[in-house]
Amino acid sequence: MLEKTIRINDLYDFYYPLLTEKQQSYMSLYYRSDLSLSEIAEQCNVTRQAVYDTIKRTEQMLEEYEDKLNLYKKFKRRQELLQKLMEITENDEGKKLIEELEKLD
Amino acid sequence: MLEKTIRINDLYDFYYPLLTEKQQSYMSLYYRSDLSLSEIAEQCNVTRQAVYDTIKRTEQMLEEYEDKLNLYKKFKRRQELLQKLMEITENDEGKKLIEELEKLD
Repeated sequence: MLEKTIRINDLYDFYYPLLTEKQQSYMSLYYRSDLSLSEIAEQCNVTRQAVYDTIKRTEQMLEEYEDKLNLYKKFKRRQELLQKLMEITENDEGKKLIEELEKLD
Repeated sequence: MLEKTIRINDLYDFYYPLLTEKQQSYMSLYYRSDLSLSEIAEQCNVTRQAVYDTIKRTEQMLEEYEDKLNLYKKFKRRQELLQKLMEITENDEGKKLIEELEKLD
């Protein structure tokens, strides 16, 4: 359960620009601000079921985007490789370039 | 004009998994196989106007995806940084890691 929450949070970081404002809003309240479905429903003046349906559907969409683009998978692999590279790089110019590469994601 | 063709081709590489089969098919015939609108229309048994509309709309979508995700822009910056890093890296392990990073995109 915690694992799923972490994964959805990570996928959200990569794909939230592809979501609608409503999806972004519910996801952010649920996963970032840790509000309950009922609290979001009250705050947004909709039913709890509507919030639940939107969040479930959005979670599916995030997984579908990841299946298609693999941004998160590639990101993790890239961070791994950059970390290894950092460990064996001794000169400052190289280290700076690696830091810039890490920040790009 | 050539510049635009190159850009659309590049954006297509990054975002084609988000397009429908029909969009992928027309874009690929037009931009990769270099068929004319009329040739695509004939081959797909639709009007030339339908092909034109789909291609124009798809080009817009590619630009919208890039506005949101910046995959192509980040890719170009990453390749630049990796190239600089390759130039100043002398040990073989480092070079291998950089090659793997280049291939990830």
